[in-house]
Amino acid sequence: MTTLKEFTYSKRFPKLPLIAAAFADQHPDLIPLAFGLPAKESFNLSLMEESSVVAIQKGGVKPLEYGGGNGPKMVAEWIKQRSLLRSARAETNEILVTAGSSQAIDIATRTLTDPGDHVWVEGPSFFGAIRQFLLAETKLTSFPVDEDGIRVDLVEDKLKEARENGGPMPKVLYVMPNYHNPTGVSLSLERRKKLAELAYEYNFYVLEDDAYVELSFTGKYVPSIYSFGPDRVIYLSTFSKIVAPGIRMGWAVASEPLINKMRMLKSDGSTSVYVQEIVSQFLTTIDFDQHVDFLNSIYRSRMEAMVVAIEEAFDRDVSYIVPEGGFFLWLTFPEGTDTSQFMQQSLQKGVSYLDGAHFYLNADEKNHIRLGFTYCNEEEIKRGIERLAESYQEHKQKNFVLEGVSE
Amino acid sequence: MTTLKEFTYSKRFPKLPLIAAAFADQHPDLIPLAFGLPAKESFNLSLMEESSVVAIQKGGVKPLEYGGGNGPKMVAEWIKQRSLLRSARAETNEILVTAGSSQAIDIATRTLTDPGDHVWVEGPSFFGAIRQFLLAETKLTSFPVDEDGIRVDLVEDKLKEARENGGPMPKVLYVMPNYHNPTGVSLSLERRKKLAELAYEYNFYVLEDDAYVELSFTGKYVPSIYSFGPDRVIYLSTFSKIVAPGIRMGWAVASEPLINKMRMLKSDGSTSVYVQEIVSQFLTTIDFDQHVDFLNSIYRSRMEAMVVAIEEAFDRDVSYIVPEGGFFLWLTFPEGTDTSQFMQQSLQKGVSYLDGAHFYLNADEKNHIRLGFTYCNEEEIKRGIERLAESYQEHKQKNFVLEGVSE
Repeated sequence: MTTLKEFTYSKRFPKLPLIAAAFADQHPDLIPLAFGLPAKESFNLSLMEESSVVAIQKGGVKPLEYGGGNGPKMVAEWIKQRSLLRSARAETNEILVTAGSSQAIDIATRTLTDPGDHVWVEGPSFFGAIRQFLLAETKLTSFPVDEDGIRVDLVEDKLKEARENGGPMPKVLYVMPNYHNPTGVSLSLERRKKLAELAYEYNFYVLEDDAYVELSFTGKYVPSIYSFGPDRVIYLSTFSKIVAPGIRMGWAVASEPLINKMRMLKSDGSTSVYVQEIVSQFLTTIDFDQHVDFLNSIYRSRMEAMVVAIEEAFDRDVSYIVPEGGFFLWLTFPEGTDTSQFMQQSLQKGVSYLDGAHFYLNADEKNHIRLGFTYCNEEEIKRGIERLAESYQEHKQKNFVLEGVSE
Repeated sequence: MTTLKEFTYSKRFPKLPLIAAAFADQHPDLIPLAFGLPAKESFNLSLMEESSVVAIQKGGVKPLEYGGGNGPKMVAEWIKQRSLLRSARAETNEILVTAGSSQAIDIATRTLTDPGDHVWVEGPSFFGAIRQFLLAETKLTSFPVDEDGIRVDLVEDKLKEARENGGPMPKVLYVMPNYHNPTGVSLSLERRKKLAELAYEYNFYVLEDDAYVELSFTGKYVPSIYSFGPDRVIYLSTFSKIVAPGIRMGWAVASEPLINKMRMLKSDGSTSVYVQEIVSQFLTTIDFDQHVDFLNSIYRSRMEAMVVAIEEAFDRDVSYIVPEGGFFLWLTFPEGTDTSQFMQQSLQKGVSYLDGAHFYLNADEKNHIRLGFTYCNEEEIKRGIERLAESYQEHKQKNFVLEGVSE
């Protein structure tokens, strides 16, 4: 056999930093605040088991064949009805069930863009989405987020400027309107309307990732961006936060021609029709409003416990906006702090978090961390925050001493 | 709201012909010979139901969480052990479970190629694979297939010629070594060895799609191409033909660095860990050799019924190679026949097939059809072939009359 030569792989792979918290389960008593994991208590195991049995008993061989049985239709119909409550009106042929919403981000992006095209995002934004945009070889620009979501006024300025100077126009603007990941803020009604208008006027698509919409602690819902501009918005959501992430099911809502194009890029053929059969039974049986109320009662209580713990452990050194829903709290440290610098100590003390730099295109802001409040119970959260505060205090003192020495 | 402007979608979407047989379920008594569907009798419903129950009872919440429980590890271990029997030696970190093997073809292609790179395929080849290569914007060249599989001598000639003249080298050669779809032939041992050698010498990857390997009617197995060149072969197979297509599970075997790159393109995160848990229970419980023997006894009998029916219905007008396994029989009509021309009559009479042109890059050969012998029982196959022969005879007579008139 000839000697092996070097092989040139596709150039689409970006160099992405490792996420240290992902490799942090060595500590015997780690309190994981790093990721967005549903509470163990949120899974309805007995109903999932029952649904699996009924899926086979009712469906027979159908759910195991290529096309599946009634499951996929029933899931699409459920999404249609549920979307109405969230102001997204769509027929079932305008709905594509995906294997999680990251797959929807991937195929939507590759449907709308070619390499070199421009995608605009929030800064900070979800690192998983950023990864899909980079793998699609698009060029990224970010816009700051305040307590009402992405600064749509700055988006408009940039669009006007691009039109006047012939600068690059976006093909996609990616936005998380409810309980934004990582900041937890929601986009105001006025900005939603304006974004839809801009999408029509400047001819781009809004990719509206509404993964957390159901997790409202106030019971209030603002109409989706999709509701203001269905021809230039792709609306995404997921079962990961409200049924289970392990089933890998999400969905996209868009115009039928666009959904048909997106379907061509779903190289898995379709999302497991067998899982869809099971989930359709699950959704048919459960009282979903009651289920969501149950989830929100758990999560609100944990979020409040986290806020109390932060207030007790941190003095005035940190700031945050109390989230009205979702999974995350975004903690901001004083300017000049680099939150990656007390990551290792925190892991050693037994708490994980994500340092905020992962959520920025060029790691331009280093003084934030994202905390997930859904997975751990109140007592664990309290201990986790105490460990975090300890690590930070030690880091701060060391830095203070070092600065003293260097002067 | 501004008037909608036209939006320019990605240019990656090829214009592909519709497959008429896919829209052919109107006939009340249609005998579907068009697609590669497992027999209804092949599904072990009770074990699937039991496996679903055990998955939840043993796994608890784990299989419903992002990372899953033990299922994914157990599935990978099963694949590792089973691959050994098929001469593919791999560690579990060299195995990637995919949502069907089409997803594996997609992500392998986009890992190895950039748009404009060259992929070489068999002519005829699986239309689903061709579609993935076109969506990846690669350039395709095909090589003829004889009774021993792809003409590796012609592949070598073309490689030499490319090296001498600086012509385009392939980055991928896609080949189905066992019971090739659509022709049913298998690649000879000698050609397998040679392909691995060529891949090393000319520095390309063989994408070895072994979807049908288990379905051997003779009990004979030839070593995989992968076994002769693991550093330049990606080996693919699937649970679709041996467990159920509706679960959407297949796999890829390749070197660990390559598998890690491919994983980055799996935008579904991972193949449903919940399904993997269920399938791992299924695989642990079933006597797989006995299960495969059972499948092959059904399929061989159906294949033989199809051969008998063809012999009875068609005279000497058609030719074919009797498949030694797999799902398909490739029927060749006299030169000059266009098999798409009696498709509509066949559908009206109640039989579907795929006209062979779909399997060629430029529809360059029109005198073949692919028949799937696995889904329908012997009696249905007999009726289906009779209907097909009738349609062909009517078409032939009409053409004969028309030719007479035009002279």
